[in-house]
Amino acid sequence: MSISIYAVSVPVFKQGLNSLKEVLKKAEAHAAARHIEADALLEARLFPDMFHLIRQVQIAADFAKGVSARLAGVEAPSHDDNEANFADLQVRLDKTLAFIATLKPEQFVGAETRDIVLRPGTPKEKRFTGHDYLLHYGLQHFFFHITTAYNILRHNGVEIGKADYIGTY
Amino acid sequence: MSISIYAVSVPVFKQGLNSLKEVLKKAEAHAAARHIEADALLEARLFPDMFHLIRQVQIAADFAKGVSARLAGVEAPSHDDNEANFADLQVRLDKTLAFIATLKPEQFVGAETRDIVLRPGTPKEKRFTGHDYLLHYGLQHFFFHITTAYNILRHNGVEIGKADYIGTY
Repeated sequence: MSISIYAVSVPVFKQGLNSLKEVLKKAEAHAAARHIEADALLEARLFPDMFHLIRQVQIAADFAKGVSARLAGVEAPSHDDNEANFADLQVRLDKTLAFIATLKPEQFVGAETRDIVLRPGTPKEKRFTGHDYLLHYGLQHFFFHITTAYNILRHNGVEIGKADYIGTY
Repeated sequence: MSISIYAVSVPVFKQGLNSLKEVLKKAEAHAAARHIEADALLEARLFPDMFHLIRQVQIAADFAKGVSARLAGVEAPSHDDNEANFADLQVRLDKTLAFIATLKPEQFVGAETRDIVLRPGTPKEKRFTGHDYLLHYGLQHFFFHITTAYNILRHNGVEIGKADYIGTY
């Protein structure tokens, strides 16, 4: 018995993106209730050379979109990185969720052995099997950005907890 | 075609624990080079009611150990939470890596449908299939603590980067 590569990607990303939406809603409400400028959270970072909250959300969404699309063997839609407020981030996450919801388990059949080439033809080219790309690269990056978005908000006093990060599935 | 539940657990945890070991080695060297008290990093946290670095490492190790053991249907060894310095944390991570290395893929056959009961008989009892326990609970918690340990160190100026977090497999 075993599990499908679809089950380890799309539903896992869906849970993470939905939990991030809830975390961001609580952050927005927190800022409004305390008369905190939204940008104080949206542009917050844990260290000057780390990405701010908006960018963490964009990258989390892009890993969910890109990893799912590559494994399914389809082109991912392009999403501009132009979000400037909490409402924009919700739209970005909704677009990402809508895209991955279009992918069917059948499209992932054989994805474990599919050749995945990142940044092809560049000095930073990276090659994986679909199996290794998901299990040793994609999941790691995705959870990094979901967790870092959460940590930026916790560090700034937003009242969220681990259950918000875990979310539901 | 599909992947085994072993492949989504033990090798993924191994990569994360080994990357955490490297990140902690860099943190220890950073503190030594700059005459920073080790405890300033070991007891650092991102917010007063979040766990400090030592506890983040202990919990990451316990998720790797506990999730792997439950899926394999074996008892996990007990590890006391008494680490007080960087060397202790390396030992804790080594013990955890040594334990999960004893688990064989065959022990995970059928684990997807195995009943997993957390905190049985308590008000916080939680029931899962092995499939959901790994994909919608275990991975999320594990990566949360690996990432938060990294974020605590980045926030304190330790010179580590995303490649250190990703590690090798």
